[in-house]
Amino acid sequence: MNPPITFNPGPAQVYSLLQEALQEAYAKGILSLPHRSKAFEEMVARCRLLIQQKLDLPANYALLFLSSATESWEVIAQSLIRERSTHLYSGAFGERCFAYTQHLHPAATGLAFELNDDPCHLLEQIPSDSELIAITHNETSNATTLPALFLSQLHEQFPDALLSVDATSSMGGVVLPWTQADIWYASVQKCFGLPAGLGIMCLSPRAVARVHEIGESGRYNSLSYMLEKMEKNQTTYTPNVLNIYLLMRVLEHIPHIIEIDLKLRQRAKTWYHFFEEHSLWQPLVANASNRSVTVIGVQGEPTQVQAFKQHALKRSIYIGNGYGQWKNHSFRIANFPAIPDTHFQQLLDVFSTFQSV
Amino acid sequence: MNPPITFNPGPAQVYSLLQEALQEAYAKGILSLPHRSKAFEEMVARCRLLIQQKLDLPANYALLFLSSATESWEVIAQSLIRERSTHLYSGAFGERCFAYTQHLHPAATGLAFELNDDPCHLLEQIPSDSELIAITHNETSNATTLPALFLSQLHEQFPDALLSVDATSSMGGVVLPWTQADIWYASVQKCFGLPAGLGIMCLSPRAVARVHEIGESGRYNSLSYMLEKMEKNQTTYTPNVLNIYLLMRVLEHIPHIIEIDLKLRQRAKTWYHFFEEHSLWQPLVANASNRSVTVIGVQGEPTQVQAFKQHALKRSIYIGNGYGQWKNHSFRIANFPAIPDTHFQQLLDVFSTFQSV
Repeated sequence: MNPPITFNPGPAQVYSLLQEALQEAYAKGILSLPHRSKAFEEMVARCRLLIQQKLDLPANYALLFLSSATESWEVIAQSLIRERSTHLYSGAFGERCFAYTQHLHPAATGLAFELNDDPCHLLEQIPSDSELIAITHNETSNATTLPALFLSQLHEQFPDALLSVDATSSMGGVVLPWTQADIWYASVQKCFGLPAGLGIMCLSPRAVARVHEIGESGRYNSLSYMLEKMEKNQTTYTPNVLNIYLLMRVLEHIPHIIEIDLKLRQRAKTWYHFFEEHSLWQPLVANASNRSVTVIGVQGEPTQVQAFKQHALKRSIYIGNGYGQWKNHSFRIANFPAIPDTHFQQLLDVFSTFQSV
Repeated sequence: MNPPITFNPGPAQVYSLLQEALQEAYAKGILSLPHRSKAFEEMVARCRLLIQQKLDLPANYALLFLSSATESWEVIAQSLIRERSTHLYSGAFGERCFAYTQHLHPAATGLAFELNDDPCHLLEQIPSDSELIAITHNETSNATTLPALFLSQLHEQFPDALLSVDATSSMGGVVLPWTQADIWYASVQKCFGLPAGLGIMCLSPRAVARVHEIGESGRYNSLSYMLEKMEKNQTTYTPNVLNIYLLMRVLEHIPHIIEIDLKLRQRAKTWYHFFEEHSLWQPLVANASNRSVTVIGVQGEPTQVQAFKQHALKRSIYIGNGYGQWKNHSFRIANFPAIPDTHFQQLLDVFSTFQSV
């Protein structure tokens, strides 16, 4: 029996190798593996090495495990900001990151931009004393990404600020310009094709130095404590050991990120073209430079959207719902690496057999 | 291939039914199940019902999911204490809970007691204005439990204080006097026989009322927000969905807690008797009323302890290390429900074939 096909942008389709990996995890005792054991430490070290090899993470960037990307928002606010951060966002997740930060640091600045806007017009509004600038590399909620050169522009104009990048639904799917930012974080239930329950954070040497300068400590998820434990390839509390093992297995399996990136871009291009030419559907994001590679947003009449999702469901195919203000007149199609081309062929059938209502 | 046998007190031996449950989780698409879906909500509701049925949790106690018991320490300090809590502890985990709380509330009071002490002698030292009294029901680090009537004594003498109980390594293993306390929390990698990466918290109506009185909010793990989401059987962030599914499967499988409790007590009695009569080993805890049912601490000469663990390991049997100050001259044997009697028979063989060094 195969699992149902899902295009939900997280929790998302998992790699089919997990079927075997779960059995091996059981047989090898990974489900009981102590998180202070040598075997666990080696597994963590291997994950870091594989992320360096397969995703090109620079060797001098630290790798940390959290329980979710949501926890990352709070941990960054807690351990990497003294008073003033600036948050640029066009969607719900970037906005929520701002709200969590503002709760701890009322002087935080939020700068919203529209779906099709070029965020470059906000550059001049960023306060020059921002200690940290937070952006969303791939906004899962509205299927947008940052224009190609935006990170380097930010980096050039604000050389002293740390750049913090929410890559929840792009890390593991596209090539990331690691050195252009200091803090990168993601969840594994998106482009890593894993079950939910684990967050990943990568810190540049500059971010690590900032953690020590600020010196926040005393919480179980204080970054200073997490970094200290990670020197021994450990975590501050009993983590989701099984998911760390599965992450290692996925990283062993996948090709280099350049190959994954190329494949996803080709697939995204085909589908965006398909929707541009379609009579019922249009890409949710009109501005092509803002369109996400990994999450494809599609808009249409609310009645058609509803009927189409039902039509797909009858074939046991799950389509991602629209989110927030785009809930009723859009749907989302995950273009994650774990989704095989055969699923997209079936999706094409679903579109071609759909009769508008 | 069977997983290695482990008596480590967490991450611990898992239920063998997980082998099949993991395959079914894969086949049913649980690894991709959206945490805002009806199917997820039903799973959470079913977990709560099963905890009521199998573990006798009162129907008016709230159930919440966290990432670990460690997170619970901080969440309680954050959302359930204004200024003054009192912490009674004899071991490392109770002490750490105090330290995390003190970081947020410097007026917190810590009252330490010794391994073999009756904590009743501390009752008169508890400040009368304590809003919350925190204790450890089963201290995993030194294999102690609370004397049988201690909770009811606390409850009687401090009727206005909330009682917060760390039941990390006893929930799911022994009958808990739920109504004698307001906050109970645990991790699933102990008596629930599950892989690590999920915490459980149960709150009395009085504790829920206190959350609302204090009104702390704005964090992703603020209890007010968690309770609000749980009204719809949801969590505040993408949780470890797979482990919630496995928890449901384990709860469906296990007998009623009265039966589990009886079995574990009989097994503990046999083993404590075995060690009392032994020439090389003695129970770590001399005072029988303080001995844990679920974690059996054993002391001996450091060289013997080391040699014995090696001897067991040669037979692919893992013994739990001693912890903290008891690291070298003790070891721990988990007496958790998922460990079958056949494993304990093999453990007996390990003891009988061990030649002292």
